[in-house]
Amino acid sequence: MNYINALKKVRIVLCNTSHPGNIGSVARAMKNMGLIDLYLVNPKDFPSEQSLAKAAGASDILDNVKVVKNIDEALVGTTFCVGTTCRHRVLTPEKLPCKDLMNKINKELLGQEGGVALIFGNERNGLTANEMGKCNAMSWVPCSPMYPSLNLSHAVQIFCYELFQSVNTVDESFGEINQHGRYEDLEYFLTTLEAVMMKSGYIKRRGEGRVKERMQRLFRRARIEKEELDILLGFLKTVRQLP
Amino acid sequence: MNYINALKKVRIVLCNTSHPGNIGSVARAMKNMGLIDLYLVNPKDFPSEQSLAKAAGASDILDNVKVVKNIDEALVGTTFCVGTTCRHRVLTPEKLPCKDLMNKINKELLGQEGGVALIFGNERNGLTANEMGKCNAMSWVPCSPMYPSLNLSHAVQIFCYELFQSVNTVDESFGEINQHGRYEDLEYFLTTLEAVMMKSGYIKRRGEGRVKERMQRLFRRARIEKEELDILLGFLKTVRQLP
Repeated sequence: MNYINALKKVRIVLCNTSHPGNIGSVARAMKNMGLIDLYLVNPKDFPSEQSLAKAAGASDILDNVKVVKNIDEALVGTTFCVGTTCRHRVLTPEKLPCKDLMNKINKELLGQEGGVALIFGNERNGLTANEMGKCNAMSWVPCSPMYPSLNLSHAVQIFCYELFQSVNTVDESFGEINQHGRYEDLEYFLTTLEAVMMKSGYIKRRGEGRVKERMQRLFRRARIEKEELDILLGFLKTVRQLP
Repeated sequence: MNYINALKKVRIVLCNTSHPGNIGSVARAMKNMGLIDLYLVNPKDFPSEQSLAKAAGASDILDNVKVVKNIDEALVGTTFCVGTTCRHRVLTPEKLPCKDLMNKINKELLGQEGGVALIFGNERNGLTANEMGKCNAMSWVPCSPMYPSLNLSHAVQIFCYELFQSVNTVDESFGEINQHGRYEDLEYFLTTLEAVMMKSGYIKRRGEGRVKERMQRLFRRARIEKEELDILLGFLKTVRQLP
């Protein structure tokens, strides 16, 4: 399945959100990761200028937002609902950390009929027992036990990011544009460097073998490029001509 | 190494941040993932009530923040600097997406001497060419090509999250043993190299700016080690004394 279509099947559901700025930040975080479908269950203050400002280039997501009165309306059409929490409670269904659950969704669900919901509770209190009761699985962002409370939109960002990572199998490695120095050119440079180090009197003082070995290692590790090689060779030739 | 101590070695550097709220959100995102060390290079508006409000339970990070005048001050004591971007530019050193680079840092660097810096540019313009020139590697958060501009604190959140994930999936094998050159030592070497290139007459012939830029890029990409730095510096000093 095309990854863009796959991500469209996943909706974000925000329950009882207090701060309109967070709603805008969530919209932006979603669009950054290719999600478009946002549901708001009883937002305290929406629509709002603050939401719009925080959404930046993702105002289209706010334009198409669905504002609903209860969580059931937000979950119509889904086949898998994930509740998010920072506390690992006892009475929950399947539990998996964010990355593992997003991988599971990608592998087992996005190719099937029906939508997926990622549900986020109120900023202060998280999901209610009723809301959690609607979930097929619970998930969380692994984080420091010293301060495990993520900002709402930051948590959404990480869930969307892990989903995007999982779905997006596009190879990110773009070919190098710069031309690397050929093996024989680097050899020539290293020989010249050694000769100039000798002529200048530097190598005798320092111990020849070790210096050569280290320089070889440095420039091979760097995967020196042709232009860099030309610069250094030119410099060495200038130095060599010094009386 | 204990993961808490490992994460303490990584500093976040924010350059020319415009919005104080973002600084507070970054502090919270850091503490959520166990990072504590925040540098601000020329923040537009700091300290500020907005920063404090957004930091929530991470005000201790703001209390200990280092506000500095230029990027060099922010990088003293580091041995590896990562620039972050959403554009893949041509003239950069090593390039890896967020997760891969955080894994590399965990595997190769956190067991060694010296700090690591993750550098984030201004909200609107990102890192300047000068700031990128200081980096050993560039990294980015993979995201939708339709809207690749993440909010600053959300980007920081994902970098810190991936680092936390990497550090917590414990693989204690730190391959490299050699000590890397410190940021300030490499700066000194690059300055000396330029001076000797000038004195020898080489730079005038070749065009100064380009040479300096390429050399900076080469040696940062190579992640030059202390002993290699000592060798090259010694050689340059010998050359300098030639009549």
